[in-house]
Amino acid sequence: MDWNEKIMEAADGLQEEMTACRRDLHRYPEPGWTEFRTAAKAAAFLTSLGYTVKTGADAVKQDCMMGVPSPEQLAADQQRAVQEGADPQWVHRMDGGRTGLVAEWKFREGGPVVAIRFDMDCNEVTETDDPAHKPNQESFASHHPGAMHACGHDGHTTVGLALARVLASLQEELRGTVRLIFQPAEEGVRGAHAMVESGIVDDVDYLLGAHFGFKMRRTGSVACNVTGFLATSKYDARFFGVPAHAGAAPEQGKNALLAAACAALNLHAIARHSGGASRINVGRLEAGSGRNVIGDKALLCLETRGATSEINRYMEAEALRILKAAALMYDVRLEVEKTGGAAGGSNSEELAAFLEQEARATGLFDEVVGACDFGASEDFSYFMERVQSHGGQAAYMMIGANLAAGHHDSRFDFDERAMGYSLKLLACSVCRLLREG
Amino acid sequence: MDWNEKIMEAADGLQEEMTACRRDLHRYPEPGWTEFRTAAKAAAFLTSLGYTVKTGADAVKQDCMMGVPSPEQLAADQQRAVQEGADPQWVHRMDGGRTGLVAEWKFREGGPVVAIRFDMDCNEVTETDDPAHKPNQESFASHHPGAMHACGHDGHTTVGLALARVLASLQEELRGTVRLIFQPAEEGVRGAHAMVESGIVDDVDYLLGAHFGFKMRRTGSVACNVTGFLATSKYDARFFGVPAHAGAAPEQGKNALLAAACAALNLHAIARHSGGASRINVGRLEAGSGRNVIGDKALLCLETRGATSEINRYMEAEALRILKAAALMYDVRLEVEKTGGAAGGSNSEELAAFLEQEARATGLFDEVVGACDFGASEDFSYFMERVQSHGGQAAYMMIGANLAAGHHDSRFDFDERAMGYSLKLLACSVCRLLREG
Amino acid sequence: MDWNEKIMEAADGLQEEMTACRRDLHRYPEPGWTEFRTAAKAAAFLTSLGYTVKTGADAVKQDCMMGVPSPEQLAADQQRAVQEGADPQWVHRMDGGRTGLVAEWKFREGGPVVAIRFDMDCNEVTETDDPAHKPNQESFASHHPGAMHACGHDGHTTVGLALARVLASLQEELRGTVRLIFQPAEEGVRGAHAMVESGIVDDVDYLLGAHFGFKMRRTGSVACNVTGFLATSKYDARFFGVPAHAGAAPEQGKNALLAAACAALNLHAIARHSGGASRINVGRLEAGSGRNVIGDKALLCLETRGATSEINRYMEAEALRILKAAALMYDVRLEVEKTGGAAGGSNSEELAAFLEQEARATGLFDEVVGACDFGASEDFSYFMERVQSHGGQAAYMMIGANLAAGHHDSRFDFDERAMGYSLKLLACSVCRLLREG
Amino acid sequence: MDWNEKIMEAADGLQEEMTACRRDLHRYPEPGWTEFRTAAKAAAFLTSLGYTVKTGADAVKQDCMMGVPSPEQLAADQQRAVQEGADPQWVHRMDGGRTGLVAEWKFREGGPVVAIRFDMDCNEVTETDDPAHKPNQESFASHHPGAMHACGHDGHTTVGLALARVLASLQEELRGTVRLIFQPAEEGVRGAHAMVESGIVDDVDYLLGAHFGFKMRRTGSVACNVTGFLATSKYDARFFGVPAHAGAAPEQGKNALLAAACAALNLHAIARHSGGASRINVGRLEAGSGRNVIGDKALLCLETRGATSEINRYMEAEALRILKAAALMYDVRLEVEKTGGAAGGSNSEELAAFLEQEARATGLFDEVVGACDFGASEDFSYFMERVQSHGGQAAYMMIGANLAAGHHDSRFDFDERAMGYSLKLLACSVCRLLREG
Repeated sequence: MDWNEKIMEAADGLQEEMTACRRDLHRYPEPGWTEFRTAAKAAAFLTSLGYTVKTGADAVKQDCMMGVPSPEQLAADQQRAVQEGADPQWVHRMDGGRTGLVAEWKFREGGPVVAIRFDMDCNEVTETDDPAHKPNQESFASHHPGAMHACGHDGHTTVGLALARVLASLQEELRGTVRLIFQPAEEGVRGAHAMVESGIVDDVDYLLGAHFGFKMRRTGSVACNVTGFLATSKYDARFFGVPAHAGAAPEQGKNALLAAACAALNLHAIARHSGGASRINVGRLEAGSGRNVIGDKALLCLETRGATSEINRYMEAEALRILKAAALMYDVRLEVEKTGGAAGGSNSEELAAFLEQEARATGLFDEVVGACDFGASEDFSYFMERVQSHGGQAAYMMIGANLAAGHHDSRFDFDERAMGYSLKLLACSVCRLLREG
Repeated sequence: MDWNEKIMEAADGLQEEMTACRRDLHRYPEPGWTEFRTAAKAAAFLTSLGYTVKTGADAVKQDCMMGVPSPEQLAADQQRAVQEGADPQWVHRMDGGRTGLVAEWKFREGGPVVAIRFDMDCNEVTETDDPAHKPNQESFASHHPGAMHACGHDGHTTVGLALARVLASLQEELRGTVRLIFQPAEEGVRGAHAMVESGIVDDVDYLLGAHFGFKMRRTGSVACNVTGFLATSKYDARFFGVPAHAGAAPEQGKNALLAAACAALNLHAIARHSGGASRINVGRLEAGSGRNVIGDKALLCLETRGATSEINRYMEAEALRILKAAALMYDVRLEVEKTGGAAGGSNSEELAAFLEQEARATGLFDEVVGACDFGASEDFSYFMERVQSHGGQAAYMMIGANLAAGHHDSRFDFDERAMGYSLKLLACSVCRLLREG
Repeated sequence: MDWNEKIMEAADGLQEEMTACRRDLHRYPEPGWTEFRTAAKAAAFLTSLGYTVKTGADAVKQDCMMGVPSPEQLAADQQRAVQEGADPQWVHRMDGGRTGLVAEWKFREGGPVVAIRFDMDCNEVTETDDPAHKPNQESFASHHPGAMHACGHDGHTTVGLALARVLASLQEELRGTVRLIFQPAEEGVRGAHAMVESGIVDDVDYLLGAHFGFKMRRTGSVACNVTGFLATSKYDARFFGVPAHAGAAPEQGKNALLAAACAALNLHAIARHSGGASRINVGRLEAGSGRNVIGDKALLCLETRGATSEINRYMEAEALRILKAAALMYDVRLEVEKTGGAAGGSNSEELAAFLEQEARATGLFDEVVGACDFGASEDFSYFMERVQSHGGQAAYMMIGANLAAGHHDSRFDFDERAMGYSLKLLACSVCRLLREG
Repeated sequence: MDWNEKIMEAADGLQEEMTACRRDLHRYPEPGWTEFRTAAKAAAFLTSLGYTVKTGADAVKQDCMMGVPSPEQLAADQQRAVQEGADPQWVHRMDGGRTGLVAEWKFREGGPVVAIRFDMDCNEVTETDDPAHKPNQESFASHHPGAMHACGHDGHTTVGLALARVLASLQEELRGTVRLIFQPAEEGVRGAHAMVESGIVDDVDYLLGAHFGFKMRRTGSVACNVTGFLATSKYDARFFGVPAHAGAAPEQGKNALLAAACAALNLHAIARHSGGASRINVGRLEAGSGRNVIGDKALLCLETRGATSEINRYMEAEALRILKAAALMYDVRLEVEKTGGAAGGSNSEELAAFLEQEARATGLFDEVVGACDFGASEDFSYFMERVQSHGGQAAYMMIGANLAAGHHDSRFDFDERAMGYSLKLLACSVCRLLREG
């Protein structure tokens, strides 16, 4: 039996375990930077397999974390994770929400460094109580109100752990290093930046990533050449003015509400870029309180996008200047927080072609599509940009999966068989790179 | 003992009863249109004295009510009122929030119609839990979270009931008609319009009103010639658009958030009026939801004001057109609800002079100020405008009272002795009008 | 014959000379800061009477001049003035547009300092060619296209010169000092500030000014107690951006047109002031050039006003900050030039009462109105503010005159008899102050 | 000598004539819809060769003409054309600015309909007086101030006339129909629409067009596969309000200046389109007059663009609604005039490939570039869209030419040898289509 057949057999044998694992994660979904239970369980398991596991400050650069919950929230969620079965020691090492994990295995010398990235966080969505929803029928729906795995990251983490087991079992046949990256806070594109800045992909030769669904909504299909990641930046802007009675002394107010309104209009008027697609959106504006009081507080939640990182930087610079100008316009104070971001980019063509060949070689997929324009944002792009910047190759795949509803929908569910497809394709590809790369 | 002495003696004898009554009302504060317990207790008391009492549809014109809570809220508050001691029959007659009361006594023929207006509603404020706050020290703080008598209407209603008792006791000496008006929903200037439109002051010769505090913040002072009521209108405007993904299909959205921002800016740019003071304020703007979604819903809470009803009508017409234009600008749907309003105006000079003379004649007040520019809005002005429009006279007094904190503050409290000052001045004035008017 | 009778007789004898003088000035109208011919002729005449005359730097503080024409324009107008009969030496002393004159006569010691201010400039209006227009009928219409005395300053200057003659003739009977101030550039409220700052009214006890018409549109009427001068500031704001092709490279532009549009909207949204009337107007906006080019230049002409100097300063400060913010909003450069201004204020009550008494004492006027609310701006207010600030008294009169059309209209003309009324009232008042003040 | 050699020989023999013709046209440049001299001379020449020539209503549909000068302007320019040598009869047939020409030759039956479009109008630019400018050196600079051939249409028209001569000389060898279209008012993309709507390309099988320069700025280069014509629409919007004194009665004004400012900002905030590039520009805004008057008039010159006609229609619909909303916002009247437009589109691939082959076959060009993204607008696209819509093929070529300065620059000049290259490529291509098509 050659190593390829071993992978297939091992993967088939893991399907039941994967289903159980995924359902356990689905029951206990954890939003960005609070994946304490998920990460602690994964860390314990990976350690037990023989991997060297890093977390906390070793995997996540604190001052690059974006959109982190309050310390109180983090503490409460750490406590909950322990109550729900996480090892307190691992949870403790993740203080401050630094839940990222890096599990490494150094095989024989002479091979490349191959990294694979999985995301762990859930959405801030309350799962449907519709009895026809499979997680309800089979009793694995979310136990956490307001939190739900509605984007399949429970499946991604599960595949990562299964891949760890398969690679460990093949250790004698591999050379080089494998590095499994479990990332927090992909939703809102908040987490990748802080892991990249901790240096964990600086020596990587090949980087892989995979996501269920998106444009591949049928189990058995796959896209290996994803292009057109939109660069994006997410910001919260807060204006602080001075309240005053709108009838008795309007001139004494500093109107944060109008500053926000003015900012919103002028942000949307940022000039289009001739270099490619650009986007701006103020998705939320909350300002003022009483009808007869000059509004003294305002919040704007906004995002910029660009077909390239450069275009997004143009949009970002314009947006930040406009926010400052709006504050000056109404003589109010501005605080801006960057809450998320992703780079632009596309798969490395050579690696994409390799993956397409692997996908066909497995004989699993009945459809291997060519170049697939993403047209959206995923912070995998930060890892990709870093790896490509030092000459490495990176690629992101969309693994076809039948879906019960769209991503982020409270009725979302994916065909669990897709985990097997993903595991097999990743395992075969990684092994070939570690044998022949 | 002449009738004047009788009034003084009667009022002195009622101080303790007034304090108890005011504290009972303070414990069970009821926001606008939900004054079921307050009004039902008052109705029962007034009936027991011999007054003819009207409520519900007889006192409040339904389609003129502004800012009415939901039917569910009203039903729940009716139930609570009964639980807290209100007579279910009276409460039932106030279905739909029509809690206004009109208590009338016809004395001998030959005298004028004199009306006095009291307001009954509380503020939507949670009372402070500071132990130094007198209602906490003496155990009469609000039992209703989120509701508090922070504007003294508990005292106004109390004075109204005490006045009813004094006048009843003097019935043999009076001619004409007295009409005691207990108005709901003064806060937000929502209630007067619907009572005025029910016709209850169409035949009134003299109309009086009184408020503790405002510009008279010392017990023993009084202002009888209040001028410069600002006319005002309150509106809630809602924009309904279409959501769309801000990255993938921005052109498919209809942006209610930008419509609201555009409306806010242009509303504040309404041209000033050469005829006198005008005001505009958008005090609250809430729009959108997710950062990456075109905001499809928006709410604006706004108000206009004018030194005269005419100027306010100008502001109102401008504002309504601008809201429509903002909806057209972003192709969204607009719903506008008028949630409150008040007229402009000033006290009738002759009646104000009469009251000043009475105030001096009582010997109670150590300070009787002259013309006092209100510079704010009170829907007493609707009653005043109607009475003055058919040739009657109307006047509003500010009864000085030591205050623990400003109006609408969670630490508000007034010197209960002020109720005696108010009762005496009103009783003397009303009796003289009913004897000599 | 007492001095009062002498004045009346002298004035009657001057009516013909005044008519000739006014018509000469009307023929050669000169806009603000170019009153070279007017001022040079006046200077020569005043000197010939025996007055000490100051002009140029002695009467006008250069760095306080607002809205000054270009050096080329000034040079051309100086040349024209000489061609039209002005003394080149006087014209030369007015280099730089410093055309203000101060003519002083020191009488016997022991009297007060009395100043009277006259304005000399014309409007930038082309006089009608309607044959029914009296200046056309009687051949004294403007010889200067685009320039016309459409506000009566030709008459004011004429009265000032006649007053000089009358006072000189009465020199034996007077004490103290008289100072006749001939001001340039009242239109656009540009000239008074620079004369005030040269210190010429710092020791003045009584200041008088007078204007034909305005609210007194019938010869024989007069208003001596003018109140409610609106403070005002005039600004030109220029934005300088960067042009770019709107199709090929919109992101390379810096959009001055949008900066101007943004400024205009937000300027009009400056919060109203509770202290009294405020005004803002952007009266002109010119921006951009080609349809397909990002507009790189913009001009805004704006003004603020306030019921008091303080309110106007609030409006001004808001406006200047908004202009800066609009420049920042679109990353363009801003240049702001103050082109005019006037203070708020009202006549000194005591002096106004004195003038009313004089007006009645002359027996000339059939209507002497009481307090007259100006509700507009005149930079006489700068002189008034300065005199009142050191304890002096100041007053401005409206001298009734039948008008052919409104001020600034191309058909404007005033009843020349009004010059006699003005002369007599000023002469009597000034003489009494210099005899009894 | 085969027909190909005949073409080359004929073209070489015409170089001197073409230079003379081009310089004559350059001397007498005529802006859009006033090409009376140009068109009349061309018509006379084409008629003399034997072509059937249509003009006026037969070639231009009046109600589809955009951006037409005033009747007075047209009349004056007709008169000038005659004075400068045009045949009055031809000029008369072009009344109303309908200067478009269609010259047709029907050859033997059995061939296709081939049309070639040339543009005739000049730019509204004053030609430089720099003595180094070749038209100055060789005395053929513009005789018309404010008008200049700064886009090479003088060359295009010249090539068209030379092509007419070449084709006439080869009549015996050709089948089918050739139609030479001379279009007015390409600048501002105003003219094509009205010629297309007259039906003159409804039966065309092959349509060709050519332009000197643009992205091909070296003589000897050529691009035959132009893609990415941006669809565009040009509009003038006028707002009419009501003036009022900004100090005395601001509420009586209807502010057209603010309507225009509001429109400009919101136009630039039109949501981006996910289907491809979109553009919006307000290139000019002129509003108001006096500083102290509410601005009662405003003009906006704007344009929209889109990568496709559909995207431009989206932009156009948004823009028109926003203009209406801005008028409603300030209660002013709106007039909108469409002054230009062009479709989106790309060359027909098959015809483009044919032209590339011809270009290579001539042996003239040292560089034949492949697909060339236009990224701008040309109303040739209207002809192209119409021909492609009924199954015909259309292509636009960029004929390389050394340029003295960029298009529309007052120093623009092109290498006259490029006319020979254009003539030869067009003649060879058209003849092959008429022989083999």
